[in-house]
Amino acid sequence: MVIGLMGFGTIGAGVYELARELPGLEVRHVLDIREIGIPELTHRAEDLWEDPEVDTVIEVMGGLHPAYEFVTSALQAGKNVVTANKYLVATYYDELLALAREKGVAFRCTAAVGGGIGWLTALERVRRLEPVLSVEGIMNGTTNYILTNMTQNGLSFEIALSEAQALGYAEADPSADIDGLDIMHKLLLSANIAFDVSLKKEEIPVFGIRNITDEDVRNFKEHSLTCKILGSARQQEGKVAAFVQPTLLAADSLTASVPTNFNLISYETAYTGKMSFYGQGAGRYPTAANVVQDCLDLAGGVQDFYSLQSAAAAVDNSIARYRYYLRTASLKRVTVAEEHWGNAVVTKAMTVTEMKKLYDELKGEDEKLFIAAIG
Amino acid sequence: MVIGLMGFGTIGAGVYELARELPGLEVRHVLDIREIGIPELTHRAEDLWEDPEVDTVIEVMGGLHPAYEFVTSALQAGKNVVTANKYLVATYYDELLALAREKGVAFRCTAAVGGGIGWLTALERVRRLEPVLSVEGIMNGTTNYILTNMTQNGLSFEIALSEAQALGYAEADPSADIDGLDIMHKLLLSANIAFDVSLKKEEIPVFGIRNITDEDVRNFKEHSLTCKILGSARQQEGKVAAFVQPTLLAADSLTASVPTNFNLISYETAYTGKMSFYGQGAGRYPTAANVVQDCLDLAGGVQDFYSLQSAAAAVDNSIARYRYYLRTASLKRVTVAEEHWGNAVVTKAMTVTEMKKLYDELKGEDEKLFIAAIG
Repeated sequence: MVIGLMGFGTIGAGVYELARELPGLEVRHVLDIREIGIPELTHRAEDLWEDPEVDTVIEVMGGLHPAYEFVTSALQAGKNVVTANKYLVATYYDELLALAREKGVAFRCTAAVGGGIGWLTALERVRRLEPVLSVEGIMNGTTNYILTNMTQNGLSFEIALSEAQALGYAEADPSADIDGLDIMHKLLLSANIAFDVSLKKEEIPVFGIRNITDEDVRNFKEHSLTCKILGSARQQEGKVAAFVQPTLLAADSLTASVPTNFNLISYETAYTGKMSFYGQGAGRYPTAANVVQDCLDLAGGVQDFYSLQSAAAAVDNSIARYRYYLRTASLKRVTVAEEHWGNAVVTKAMTVTEMKKLYDELKGEDEKLFIAAIG
Repeated sequence: MVIGLMGFGTIGAGVYELARELPGLEVRHVLDIREIGIPELTHRAEDLWEDPEVDTVIEVMGGLHPAYEFVTSALQAGKNVVTANKYLVATYYDELLALAREKGVAFRCTAAVGGGIGWLTALERVRRLEPVLSVEGIMNGTTNYILTNMTQNGLSFEIALSEAQALGYAEADPSADIDGLDIMHKLLLSANIAFDVSLKKEEIPVFGIRNITDEDVRNFKEHSLTCKILGSARQQEGKVAAFVQPTLLAADSLTASVPTNFNLISYETAYTGKMSFYGQGAGRYPTAANVVQDCLDLAGGVQDFYSLQSAAAAVDNSIARYRYYLRTASLKRVTVAEEHWGNAVVTKAMTVTEMKKLYDELKGEDEKLFIAAIG
């Protein structure tokens, strides 16, 4: 396999190092705008797809542009594409897959969800035999690090976040993590592959953890609950639900026990039951390892990563129902309270659709609003 | 793929049901001694390997004999073999793999370890890229059910065991589970595939849970520890350690949180780091699903399950060192105690080799002896 590698950042340098050690894989070109002092370096993206000997292009630049243009050009030139770029794939899912199909090439993105966890490959495998009923899990290490630190050490959100930033887990602008958008992209890809559908980003409600306080966490602990932010999707009676929300779990449950920046993602099927996968959700080598594993699958003859004929499906969260922890300064507007927990309430069971509507109404009056489903 | 199925018990009936639903798989013959009222039934084992159209024989009879003779005959006739029989594979590992290699056929046994968890397949995948440093985990649902019940509900060992028997998790003779032999077989297969070696059963020390008492469990709880019985193997400086032992884990750790009859098995590698797999370790459909997944891998062109050239390796547990909880009526003979926990002691750090020697010495005087490593 002759590879053109786009991007020599954290992941790219890891891919370069791992791929070079394997017989049968050759990194022929490396695209980067910097002078990085390796013989394969080029500043011309075209070099990768104009080289007829390159059969596979790996995109680990990140971001939407020019990653989108480069990946499109590579597919059009008949190259297989392997990427770890969840933002790219979640945004142009239908278009990129249709192009890959048209050109008869493979498109793989195992490292886009769960980093070092071969999660999408595991979904691909189980789907050969049985339909997937649901996917759910901790899909973002930064927020899990923050929540673990708040729970175990009683830190405020602000201090836990700045520690995560100091350790390099969180970006200077942490919005994509703490507002749940990173999880939403990973959930969308997981649901698309699990259920053979194509969901729209803007239909997936996302409740983040930006407003969680140490007082909230103390409230949860008093009820032997631990807060995790989960991506969750299920398929039922022809409907697909998908949402991202902070969720309160029994403190001694498996998911509640996931520490620091680890991920734990699960599927449920009719025959195998519940299967969970735990590992490093990010990081140079874990992520690079799954990028290279995708290449090994291609080299071994695996082509179809997942169905290339997914049907568009509307998100319908009326099939998912929870009681919610709800803390807001506008409590007088909340008519669904069943219990009081400190300065917050616990609502009666309501659908995620109903909560999204209530949340949007309250948000206009109370920017500091926080909600969490009771899982 | 035309299949000859040996055994129509719990797993076999599940395989029959799942395989029939898949295009491309045909179950041509089913071997069973009973009259089970299906058209594919035969009482003649030879029918399976004498049929030139059968390419794959599935063995889910269990036990050593006649499973060994039948599997050998099938391999000799040039059939691929898929089995869930850990006892068979762990006992005749070298011989069966050499025969498969000689005949140029495939031998797969994913369901032999972890039931519904595609554990051996996951090991196979990660090994393509990076060496495995260690494997460890909860590999037996019966003992995990007993230990969970003792920990959460304060039951005695005897009552927890009889509940497990009533639920069908434990056999009438539970020795293979509670003495750790079932785990030892699964550990041996995991280590062989992870490290590309061939270990000998009799070299793997096995410490069981037959003697654990509710008083031991109270002792552990007072120190915020939870007892699990783990199979554990590692490779280091050219040496391979492998052992089965009750292990005390922080009560809020992931492995300690594994409930009832579930399994959680982990590997550690240089690049990917720690990866854990959680799921149903047994049961008709989970186990049958992995048997059928092995068939789908074969049908998809995957042949080599793992290296067919594993080197014999002596188990050397001098590279594994723990402090041990040790409860014995012969305490006066124990010179390695550092702390007293109730009527037990905690030893200074010692190798598993040293503990095995001490254990065997003490066992002669005290049949009720119990030890657990502090993990």
